[in-house]
Amino acid sequence: MTDILERFSFNHATAKFWDQREAIDACARTGSAIGLWREPVAEQGLASTAEYLQDAGVPVTSLCRAGFFTDPTPEAIEDNKRAIDETAALGAPTLVLVSGPIPEAGTIDSAREGVKEALSLLAPYAIEQGVTLAIEPLHPMFASDRCVVTTLAEALDLAAPFAPEAVGVVIDTYHLWWDPEVWNGITRAGAEGRIASFQLADWITPLPAGVLTGRGQLGDGCIDMRRYLDAVDATGFTGKIEVELFNDALWARPGQEVFDETRAAFEGVLTKAARA
Amino acid sequence: MTDILERFSFNHATAKFWDQREAIDACARTGSAIGLWREPVAEQGLASTAEYLQDAGVPVTSLCRAGFFTDPTPEAIEDNKRAIDETAALGAPTLVLVSGPIPEAGTIDSAREGVKEALSLLAPYAIEQGVTLAIEPLHPMFASDRCVVTTLAEALDLAAPFAPEAVGVVIDTYHLWWDPEVWNGITRAGAEGRIASFQLADWITPLPAGVLTGRGQLGDGCIDMRRYLDAVDATGFTGKIEVELFNDALWARPGQEVFDETRAAFEGVLTKAARA
Repeated sequence: MTDILERFSFNHATAKFWDQREAIDACARTGSAIGLWREPVAEQGLASTAEYLQDAGVPVTSLCRAGFFTDPTPEAIEDNKRAIDETAALGAPTLVLVSGPIPEAGTIDSAREGVKEALSLLAPYAIEQGVTLAIEPLHPMFASDRCVVTTLAEALDLAAPFAPEAVGVVIDTYHLWWDPEVWNGITRAGAEGRIASFQLADWITPLPAGVLTGRGQLGDGCIDMRRYLDAVDATGFTGKIEVELFNDALWARPGQEVFDETRAAFEGVLTKAARA
Repeated sequence: MTDILERFSFNHATAKFWDQREAIDACARTGSAIGLWREPVAEQGLASTAEYLQDAGVPVTSLCRAGFFTDPTPEAIEDNKRAIDETAALGAPTLVLVSGPIPEAGTIDSAREGVKEALSLLAPYAIEQGVTLAIEPLHPMFASDRCVVTTLAEALDLAAPFAPEAVGVVIDTYHLWWDPEVWNGITRAGAEGRIASFQLADWITPLPAGVLTGRGQLGDGCIDMRRYLDAVDATGFTGKIEVELFNDALWARPGQEVFDETRAAFEGVLTKAARA
């Protein structure tokens, strides 16, 4: 095993339809960590999942996902607090936040104000529970229907009023690779202690018709993963690195096969030299 | 006719399969300007198109498009010089540049260096011909296969080494609307004298499967066109405003119908108050 494989975390969504326990078992066998999703956790049961993880000795890097609070109704805030509880119960350090769409009656600006308000309502509770909220900027093609936060700079600005233990950011190569400011953003995120999650997925061309589920296997696209690793590590980050691929073709295959392929691709792209 | 309709320019791509002369006639009848494309101009003949425009008294706001010089080969530069010649021959002030994809053997960074090099090779020739090259930042979903320039800030940085008469930028609502920095970018573009083209198209949700041809009719999406008008005009810009919609459903309809609808939508979205 190369050193880099000790940092491998398999996000369960990469093999979405694979039984969660089997995914945890695969991680246990290979010394990997796992990123979990609320729905499968609820299906297996929160306490039962936590116990299963502990018995297997598999650390959870993040729980996906909460957020969707651009219209920060009491219901939305309540659901996010439940997600914080679930994160704490699983012993995971980080809850990933996808901020949400432009509300029916709003604009992208009002939606961004909603995110600010929601964070201020949730940050104190997150601290109490020992959970870091990780704002994930999504690719701008999702700005209207999924996440109004589109750049690392914006995510860091949103996090700025709060302690780094309360609010951090997700650095996901798939969402950020196009941004000419991404390297400055990574340096800033590190300096401000905000890197709460580091996720990899590749960008393939042409963009698949179903843009939500067209993330490429590592190495299949145009993103220089090694350069991202070097940039993130240069900030002092030493944490696990999740691979999260939403990909219809992967989802159609057996989970163990996808796990093995993804782990090998992870090692491959992160051990070769960064491109010139 | 309200004042705003005097600023209406119909980009021919909005009714892509409509005969170019019929589109020019429709503009002449309504006191509109037109944005043209190189392929239909070549089909009708450059000199013949220029004469037809002059007889009709229809101004050309821009010629689309050159660029695709992320790998700035002599052939790419030569083609761009021909496009500059065509722009001058049509009496158009502006040539729109779509910078191009990541080349086979390159990275997004090397591609961006290619754009810099190409601009330095073309800017003196553009000045000689009295044509402004307009760098168009495209939506980041096109960053790998169409345009590595994705933000207004980046386009302005690329333009900075050159005189504003040589190199400007395109402000296109469809490509820029998601950017939290867009308002600062518009202010900067105005202050630096770089607004060479102002184009409108709306962002509709969900994103159509063919992302290239899913631009929404004005008012059908989430972009506050009036706010863009106010922001651009606040810089002192008083030029024409092009509507350029790549939309399969529009392309399937009769050109005159699309023209009339688009002109009415233009008036509608630009005369109502900006959203709160």
